[in-house]
Amino acid sequence: MRTLVTGAAGYLGSALVRALSNAPIADTGSLLPTDRAAPASVSPHALPWAAGDIGDPALLDRLFTEPVETVFHFAGIVSGAAEADYEAGKRVNLDATIALLERCRHQAVRGGPVVRFVYASSIAVFGTPLPRRIDDTTAPAPTLSYGAHKRACELLIDDCTRRGFLDGRALRLSGVVVRPPLANGALSGFNSDLIREPLAGRRYVCPVSPEATIWITSLLHVIGNLMRLARIDGAAIGPLREMTTPSLAVSVAAIVEAIRRVDAPAAERIGYRPHPAIEAQFGRWPLDCAFDKGRALGLATDASIDDVIRIHREAR
Amino acid sequence: MRTLVTGAAGYLGSALVRALSNAPIADTGSLLPTDRAAPASVSPHALPWAAGDIGDPALLDRLFTEPVETVFHFAGIVSGAAEADYEAGKRVNLDATIALLERCRHQAVRGGPVVRFVYASSIAVFGTPLPRRIDDTTAPAPTLSYGAHKRACELLIDDCTRRGFLDGRALRLSGVVVRPPLANGALSGFNSDLIREPLAGRRYVCPVSPEATIWITSLLHVIGNLMRLARIDGAAIGPLREMTTPSLAVSVAAIVEAIRRVDAPAAERIGYRPHPAIEAQFGRWPLDCAFDKGRALGLATDASIDDVIRIHREAR
Repeated sequence: MRTLVTGAAGYLGSALVRALSNAPIADTGSLLPTDRAAPASVSPHALPWAAGDIGDPALLDRLFTEPVETVFHFAGIVSGAAEADYEAGKRVNLDATIALLERCRHQAVRGGPVVRFVYASSIAVFGTPLPRRIDDTTAPAPTLSYGAHKRACELLIDDCTRRGFLDGRALRLSGVVVRPPLANGALSGFNSDLIREPLAGRRYVCPVSPEATIWITSLLHVIGNLMRLARIDGAAIGPLREMTTPSLAVSVAAIVEAIRRVDAPAAERIGYRPHPAIEAQFGRWPLDCAFDKGRALGLATDASIDDVIRIHREAR
Repeated sequence: MRTLVTGAAGYLGSALVRALSNAPIADTGSLLPTDRAAPASVSPHALPWAAGDIGDPALLDRLFTEPVETVFHFAGIVSGAAEADYEAGKRVNLDATIALLERCRHQAVRGGPVVRFVYASSIAVFGTPLPRRIDDTTAPAPTLSYGAHKRACELLIDDCTRRGFLDGRALRLSGVVVRPPLANGALSGFNSDLIREPLAGRRYVCPVSPEATIWITSLLHVIGNLMRLARIDGAAIGPLREMTTPSLAVSVAAIVEAIRRVDAPAAERIGYRPHPAIEAQFGRWPLDCAFDKGRALGLATDASIDDVIRIHREAR
């Protein structure tokens, strides 16, 4: 049976495809990544690949020509791009996700397998002003279209799960670091730039102040957590299938100090030009936070910011 | 400019159309009710009427042939019917609402008026097990498709309001009493039956226990609150446009005692056969509740259950 990965050419999608490809063959015999185009680097083992637009019903037809067992749904227009182009964001982040959920429902009501639907949600379901504390009980109140559409889809996934149309799991991702310098519109991209740029010997002007506080996770843990969520029995999660991925909550100043500990001149290459809107949406994540639901399910995160920086330097 | 009322043949929609028709002529010169068919009783003054299915793009075309200033969006598949027929519920409660919001957005981005979009939401955005207290900060966690779709649309209305595509207001309605005995699928219909049936001289078997607690509002106040919300300046509401209509929180036993005070034999005509699922979803509304946001905006409710019963008896 098929495992679909949407958005498979993206940073997260391609990392997941690599991880699934390295798993025992029985797990990946029918792995089918899909995205608009297949970069050569993504398909090192000449995997099959479904090229197409996730908003195109003809692509969905092709994805479901065989019974689908698991969907990892990453395809999305990221926060900044969805703010800049509402129609593009709605088309992919809302409409295409609803259409994909409908395909899963159709499969189940026709007697096919109940899809394990692993959804890359986002901490953008929380909006400004950000609460002083965020835990599993905090009410989402998005203030970006990206977050509003993510939250709407979480609700639909919970409802479809309750009705037995699919078996959903929504992981709210925090800032995944250290991303490559891709201008893909993620307003929160400064969290990666802040680490990568000075360590690469370049000056970096940070769009938030040293006092800004952010939530980050390394790619390693995000991919591990998504794969773990796909394996967990749904009953262990409970009726509400959304949770925030365990994250490091740190100040920009603490990140800079960690950089200084391994490369003092790098820390000197960092300057600041805080942008109030970016600081409000992306630089006020509470240090008072808890990720109990994810942790109870065995989801993991980095031990420290020093670890994140060490892994990044070793990978270069 | 046009005022649209969707679901205008329904209990709430027809009452709103009557109320708007009785308002000064300047307010209703372009009132356009719409529903699948126009009952003769709904159009006493030979109002224009747009007959059609709210899920049909051709109907939406007709609704927007003139600039629309206000939309009262009542069209919906009620809770029990949407549980019984997921596709019908999704088509109207989710898809058609999204399509209607898109029409409003198109009008605004093309330089037309920003629609005041008054949405009949529902306390079904809260799910089981119901919290011990519900107020304006309580996180919605729906456990019916009806409530999940209502909550998703609230999020979209907030987002479209933030972006200036429309000027939304979502009123979460509690049980509106005393409804006529229409089998329209509302699982929560027992709250009206409990009052109407014994007072009409008929025996009534209540599907929840005397200990069940419910939230109710009389039609008079619901319609008044919706009309008030349509007039209020959006800035007074704030960025989150959803609120629960102020309601009476009472036990079934208290309602029966109020019936007894005006008609002792009627109270004797009430029996009980509690249904666990109905009791859990519709009979555990917390007596510990607050409706501060709506009250601060001048929304009103009944002074007592005795008042509700008195008004019902006077109207017969």
